[in-house]
Amino acid sequence: MLNESPDLDRLFHALADPARRAMIARLSRGPAAVSELARPLPMSLPAAMQHLGVLEAAGLVRSEKVGRVRTCVIQTATLSLAEQWINARRQEWEQRLDRLGEYLTSLQDEGGRDD
Amino acid sequence: MLNESPDLDRLFHALADPARRAMIARLSRGPAAVSELARPLPMSLPAAMQHLGVLEAAGLVRSEKVGRVRTCVIQTATLSLAEQWINARRQEWEQRLDRLGEYLTSLQDEGGRDD
Repeated sequence: MLNESPDLDRLFHALADPARRAMIARLSRGPAAVSELARPLPMSLPAAMQHLGVLEAAGLVRSEKVGRVRTCVIQTATLSLAEQWINARRQEWEQRLDRLGEYLTSLQDEGGRDD
Repeated sequence: MLNESPDLDRLFHALADPARRAMIARLSRGPAAVSELARPLPMSLPAAMQHLGVLEAAGLVRSEKVGRVRTCVIQTATLSLAEQWINARRQEWEQRLDRLGEYLTSLQDEGGRDD
């Protein structure tokens, strides 16, 4: 009965933490080394790497090790999935408001004819 | 250091579950009684009400008891907060791609002059 989507579960869960959102915000402006992502966060490097793991598992970030530096890149297509889900809800409620507006207008028109 | 936002934490957490997303999808199409929200879900009424509590705590749903029926209404402004956060990230990465495009074009132009 449920439209099960482990992808969306993992995606929204990944966004439900300020440290992970800070990482995504940083990566939206361009790729960054793990150390650069971790530096502004009020936590140890291993804790930051754990958050990064959640982002990678959700498909929001891909990282690649070149030499001694691991560089992270945002996966914008995955973030778009969350956007699409919310947009679909917005379309539904806007359609509903449109129908409600049409109904109210039709009531007014009928009222006008009664005068 | 972090842009702490317990609102966004609760909001994205609330969306990270298929039963809660199903409730939001239903409420996007109009208000519904709790029993109507719970019926399609593969769980007990108390379990569904617990999910509803998470949605209410996140500010995504408001419910009101009229007589014996508790009716739920989506709070679209709250869902828009999630949309705005993702849109802001999209703008950042699109600006970055624009700058990258301009840079590549400038390289091509320089290459053209060298011929």
